[in-house]
Amino acid sequence: MNELKFINYLKKTIKHGKDVVCGIGDDAAVINYRSGKYMLFASDMIVEGIHFSKKDTPQDIGWKAVGINISDIAAMGGVPKYIVISASAPGNSGLKILKGIIKGAKKICKAFNVNIVGGDTNRGRNLVIDTAIIGEVEKKCLVLRSGAKEGDLIFVSGALGKGVLKNLRMVPRLEEARVLVKQFRINSMCDISDGLFLDLHRLAGASNVGAFIYKSLIPLYSDSTSFSDALSYGEDFELLFTLSLKEAKKLMRYIGKHEYPPVTLIGEVVSGKKGLNFVGDEGKVTKIRPRGYLHF
Amino acid sequence: MNELKFINYLKKTIKHGKDVVCGIGDDAAVINYRSGKYMLFASDMIVEGIHFSKKDTPQDIGWKAVGINISDIAAMGGVPKYIVISASAPGNSGLKILKGIIKGAKKICKAFNVNIVGGDTNRGRNLVIDTAIIGEVEKKCLVLRSGAKEGDLIFVSGALGKGVLKNLRMVPRLEEARVLVKQFRINSMCDISDGLFLDLHRLAGASNVGAFIYKSLIPLYSDSTSFSDALSYGEDFELLFTLSLKEAKKLMRYIGKHEYPPVTLIGEVVSGKKGLNFVGDEGKVTKIRPRGYLHF
Repeated sequence: MNELKFINYLKKTIKHGKDVVCGIGDDAAVINYRSGKYMLFASDMIVEGIHFSKKDTPQDIGWKAVGINISDIAAMGGVPKYIVISASAPGNSGLKILKGIIKGAKKICKAFNVNIVGGDTNRGRNLVIDTAIIGEVEKKCLVLRSGAKEGDLIFVSGALGKGVLKNLRMVPRLEEARVLVKQFRINSMCDISDGLFLDLHRLAGASNVGAFIYKSLIPLYSDSTSFSDALSYGEDFELLFTLSLKEAKKLMRYIGKHEYPPVTLIGEVVSGKKGLNFVGDEGKVTKIRPRGYLHF
Repeated sequence: MNELKFINYLKKTIKHGKDVVCGIGDDAAVINYRSGKYMLFASDMIVEGIHFSKKDTPQDIGWKAVGINISDIAAMGGVPKYIVISASAPGNSGLKILKGIIKGAKKICKAFNVNIVGGDTNRGRNLVIDTAIIGEVEKKCLVLRSGAKEGDLIFVSGALGKGVLKNLRMVPRLEEARVLVKQFRINSMCDISDGLFLDLHRLAGASNVGAFIYKSLIPLYSDSTSFSDALSYGEDFELLFTLSLKEAKKLMRYIGKHEYPPVTLIGEVVSGKKGLNFVGDEGKVTKIRPRGYLHF
């Protein structure tokens, strides 16, 4: 059993009440809440040696711990509201590290108007930070990863391949996501946390569709970015989303006028039977494997 | 700076919006939500070697990770609703351990009607589990630790000193707390996670009051429980609460009739100037130090 199968196992075996609109498997859980709005609820853990290294500053680590959680809410079309931050740190310099983490967390929370409302501090052998976030989304703005439709066009925000540079000061695409869900009918969306190929695999799987992705269309972060990094390194935190041709045309007109949001067409959604396809150099088509960051 | 001062530092420096009724410093954050109800939000992290050992079964660990979070919601007078579970585990047997943790978590969630709606799994050097929980509470049932009043009587649920036995299958006092907040006017409450003395210190500090605790009244879990363990070992997860003499009389009559909830009078709230006092053998009074489980 690998991580993907484990998550499928959880999806199948964990039941919830009727007020849970969407549980495990998307960027955030969706919960019935008040008229016109859903509550969103997500958590993310980052671990020393995996998501950051001993060399990184506590402030940068705190920024990232919160940033990836805000990215989860953005990927649902929502607005982040409240966050709790738990951390374990080694005993000798633990409180100093935790203070730095809180400093970084406060900075990004201020930038994105998120309230830090609680948490838990512990002693532990290595540094682990877990954040859980509550957000909300207007019912009509909610976007799941399961809504992609045959004929949709596939877009990504920004450029891919930043993750490999290990800059922890990622900026979640909250503003961009809000423009997208408010101005257009987005059929499906997720953030690219584990690499385009793996997250596309998840989105397509949830939607029961296939896709064609064109190598020539993929926006690389810099000339020196390798395609392999851009497609499967992960930690990019860009948005991956699909919308109908009609809505895509509206989006293009909007971008022509506002020069915003920064998004690029990279492919199209096809029938599930056709699977996931990568159109490479000289039109050579290969099957996309769920390659990307798997912990197990 | 120790852990208590660190939390005070957080309380002072972290600001939040008007919709946050109570942020850092209580068992859970209290957030304005819908008419008649508040939302509660809390997180708890447990770490291998501190809260459990390699010998414990993953199922027991999963039970406890969720149980202490339910206890936080109970201590506010509320009802737990939704939980997210994040964990890092070593690579070699990580998924097997995580599966066991989920099994234990599912069991306690079923018993307390809590929905597991998400989480995050990671590889990490040692086992760390963090849970974040959303609950709700009727506005009139909310109890903070800051509401103790001079003249209140102090009670604990159950008996103290269980924590030292390291049984991870703790049963959060949710049912008892709900009876208390629905039937009586409870002025202040918290759960005893770090030892009676330390948690009393926090409750009294938040309420600006002092207290007298009587050794002869303290209910010990068994004849072999040492007083030192009962007062400062922690991990008991009993309720510590205060209410007026009038309400305490009502509580006593209620218990006489229903033989429930299991609570014991252990002391009284006095003016803050008098400090925290422990009345020991032969009436000898000593000052209570914030002795208990501190990570830093």
